[in-house]
Amino acid sequence: MTSSRANDAHLIEFLTDLFGPSRVLCRPHQLAAYECDGYVAQTGLPRAVVFPETTDEVAQVVRYLHEHEVPFLPRGAGTGLSGGAMPRNGEVVISLVRMNKLLRVDFDNLRAVVQPGHVNLQLTRKISAQGYYYAPDPSSQSVCTIGGNLAENAGGSHCLKYGVTTNHIVAAKVVLPTGDVVDIGAEFGDALGYDLLGLVVGSEGTLGIATEITVKILKKPEAVRTALAMFDTVADAADTVTDIIGAGIIPAAIEMMDQLAMQAVDKSNYHVGYPKDIEAVLLIEVDGMAAGLEDVAAEIVHICHKHNVRTVKVAASDEERALWWSSRKMAFGATGRISPDYIVQDGVIPRTKLSQVMARIQQLSEESGLRIANVFHAGDGNLHPLICYDSRVPGQTELATRVGSEILKACVDAGGSITGEHGVGVEKIEEMRYMFDDTDLAAQAAVRQVFNPADLCNAGKLIPKPARCAEVKHMQRLIEQHAEVFRDLEDQTLTLRS
Amino acid sequence: MTSSRANDAHLIEFLTDLFGPSRVLCRPHQLAAYECDGYVAQTGLPRAVVFPETTDEVAQVVRYLHEHEVPFLPRGAGTGLSGGAMPRNGEVVISLVRMNKLLRVDFDNLRAVVQPGHVNLQLTRKISAQGYYYAPDPSSQSVCTIGGNLAENAGGSHCLKYGVTTNHIVAAKVVLPTGDVVDIGAEFGDALGYDLLGLVVGSEGTLGIATEITVKILKKPEAVRTALAMFDTVADAADTVTDIIGAGIIPAAIEMMDQLAMQAVDKSNYHVGYPKDIEAVLLIEVDGMAAGLEDVAAEIVHICHKHNVRTVKVAASDEERALWWSSRKMAFGATGRISPDYIVQDGVIPRTKLSQVMARIQQLSEESGLRIANVFHAGDGNLHPLICYDSRVPGQTELATRVGSEILKACVDAGGSITGEHGVGVEKIEEMRYMFDDTDLAAQAAVRQVFNPADLCNAGKLIPKPARCAEVKHMQRLIEQHAEVFRDLEDQTLTLRS
Repeated sequence: MTSSRANDAHLIEFLTDLFGPSRVLCRPHQLAAYECDGYVAQTGLPRAVVFPETTDEVAQVVRYLHEHEVPFLPRGAGTGLSGGAMPRNGEVVISLVRMNKLLRVDFDNLRAVVQPGHVNLQLTRKISAQGYYYAPDPSSQSVCTIGGNLAENAGGSHCLKYGVTTNHIVAAKVVLPTGDVVDIGAEFGDALGYDLLGLVVGSEGTLGIATEITVKILKKPEAVRTALAMFDTVADAADTVTDIIGAGIIPAAIEMMDQLAMQAVDKSNYHVGYPKDIEAVLLIEVDGMAAGLEDVAAEIVHICHKHNVRTVKVAASDEERALWWSSRKMAFGATGRISPDYIVQDGVIPRTKLSQVMARIQQLSEESGLRIANVFHAGDGNLHPLICYDSRVPGQTELATRVGSEILKACVDAGGSITGEHGVGVEKIEEMRYMFDDTDLAAQAAVRQVFNPADLCNAGKLIPKPARCAEVKHMQRLIEQHAEVFRDLEDQTLTLRS
Repeated sequence: MTSSRANDAHLIEFLTDLFGPSRVLCRPHQLAAYECDGYVAQTGLPRAVVFPETTDEVAQVVRYLHEHEVPFLPRGAGTGLSGGAMPRNGEVVISLVRMNKLLRVDFDNLRAVVQPGHVNLQLTRKISAQGYYYAPDPSSQSVCTIGGNLAENAGGSHCLKYGVTTNHIVAAKVVLPTGDVVDIGAEFGDALGYDLLGLVVGSEGTLGIATEITVKILKKPEAVRTALAMFDTVADAADTVTDIIGAGIIPAAIEMMDQLAMQAVDKSNYHVGYPKDIEAVLLIEVDGMAAGLEDVAAEIVHICHKHNVRTVKVAASDEERALWWSSRKMAFGATGRISPDYIVQDGVIPRTKLSQVMARIQQLSEESGLRIANVFHAGDGNLHPLICYDSRVPGQTELATRVGSEILKACVDAGGSITGEHGVGVEKIEEMRYMFDDTDLAAQAAVRQVFNPADLCNAGKLIPKPARCAEVKHMQRLIEQHAEVFRDLEDQTLTLRS
């Protein structure tokens, strides 16, 4: 299916003609930087890396790669945590970092149009003076790109109130894996026809490459109140979360950290000074109109007290609030202070199962002998267990991976899901079977076939093969036949248009 | 493609065996009630109507119809406004009204599971005593079903703050057009893999039949404040809407009615007493925590005054609020008081283009000599022009239809869309070309092919044929070939599972 190395000379010649030598990387030492993303457990070398600057350049390179059956994948900032941008088939990596422009802002109608390489936080910075911001805020927001956020349907601390990326992208121009360019979604009004935009958001780069992205921007809330609450037990903290939501309050964010996570954070530069013997801390934020927000904050403090909080305080200044948030946002990095290696897991559970699943995680930690820190978006039940291990000890990497998989199983058994915001990628492709049977997976695979008939675009990610028995070969042959017909159909469509 | 009438005897025998005679309708006078839905401009007789009570019954009948190449379509309460449930190919109508159970409620985790025939408002009634409700509130909510809401991605007055149906459905069990049963979405956590749920919501019954639907329920807001503001000019009302949103207030609803709509309403039983010479009235509602809500209401009143409001008042009692809302919700029906016939249109525009598009509607009214009332969700720019005509006057039906189409064109030209919440169905299938080119439509058609390979399930709705030139025949042959391969693939999948 893939072209031989002998043909690579032609490929590089084509790429260099199209992009010029400064926008093509093909030497081994250059390619090494692109062998993985934020998921480092697996790596693979790309065939080349290119840096398009326009939709037309993306379409041209994709059309060429499609015609010559060369695998390829798109890449943003490479901060993904499940290996979505990891080359596993000697792909040509199409880096979108040079397509980083803000194309248009419409403040009155709350829309902005960006190129895919635009950095998430930069958008907020550019519209902040006028009083606006872009809501989705993954921890990596200072470097990750909105194109990457689209691919992974990125979340963030404030998605409890504001929703994940799919709620904030309203339209996109997309280069399909065949090189065709389509416009999907609608700048105003909900999707009509089939919601192809919803399909592409979160498709982890397997259905095409977005080259223009229209997002909602929001007016900055008039006021914000942030509370930090420390609890003797995880159960008390968990009950507090359930009660706050049950009272009809929708906080902008409710974050939880457990004892080990607090220890890690206190060892780093973000020193909040958590007591050593508390089991859980909650960071609770509400925002909105200034009128009445004090009362809402007071109600939250009251609910904390009902559940035996040891101490709870509302931030007295912007500086205090910023310190608390840094301490939370840097928790992943701080884990490096207490362990040579760690895996960040990402499961979702019903809020009410928090204590139960935390107990199971504790049990897995004791059984495996691996420490597990927990840092998570408690409000929407999105856990991030950090499994600490030492890759220098033989077998520990595999053990940590197995423990991660067991945690995901516990999430699914509790009625939850195997990923909240980090995606499936290569990391969790087998765990998809915990949630979907062969018919479900066949339906998903069929959708991929439509847009990605030759499976050249980020193959081997997201959807596992529907079945593993002997007959799978026959099925694959049928899929390939189907792809053939589809290619004909597309040629036909192109003919009709020309 | 469809079986001949000669085979109908076998079909009716099968249906009667499966459902018993009381759950099969096949006589002409019985079928007449199913010849259209709320869109009455086109009608067609179904071959039969059946009333399944379980997922398994739905799967059995669909599998039989698929195998025997008999067209079919699902139907809820038949309140749709774009002809989505209208039989245009002698379909077997699968009515879901008997599948109307509330299967499960999880108050702590804010989820409910219903069958598709469950009436929208009944869900809120059943959970209201505990303090919860289901947010999407189309005007037909007292009779329409949640299955129908899923198919049409229904909106409603309060979707400005709370979002349309797709934001409230988290998972579903779906019988595909082949009879396969799949589970899509996730009760907790966002969709993983491809967002097939997002694809099925709003697919207007063309991708399958949902038989179990998991929805979000919300805690009722602690307090509500509703203001009624009357303006001398549409422009002042429109600027008020823009300014309220610009102030960072997100009202639960902002509804607008123009002069003709107010006249109609005042002639009906919902007598508010609008002055005859005002051009526009706004109904503005905010909800949330009680603390501070008065201040928000006061801010809204202040903004109205900045834009020359003639009178504005906040509802003094629940009764007054209910009267105002009845007057708005019954506006469609009340139009029957001023015109023998009318078409409800449904376009979306950027909020800031409100005055401009209203002027174009006025111009079309003058040119055509047809009166047009306007009732709409102003907050999200979702217009509902009511085009008044008299079907007894030769040519007026066609004229009204043409005016409707011109209004949609004006919406698209202003950067908007041809439907906000009523769907495409048969009504707007040609207007899809205003928004999508052949490549875009081919991508949509390809998605339909995946789930609906023989195009038996609600054919001829939603997506127009990608092209109309001579070569379209060749293209269709390719599509059929592709369908063939896909059927083989599915047979294969079934073999694998058995």
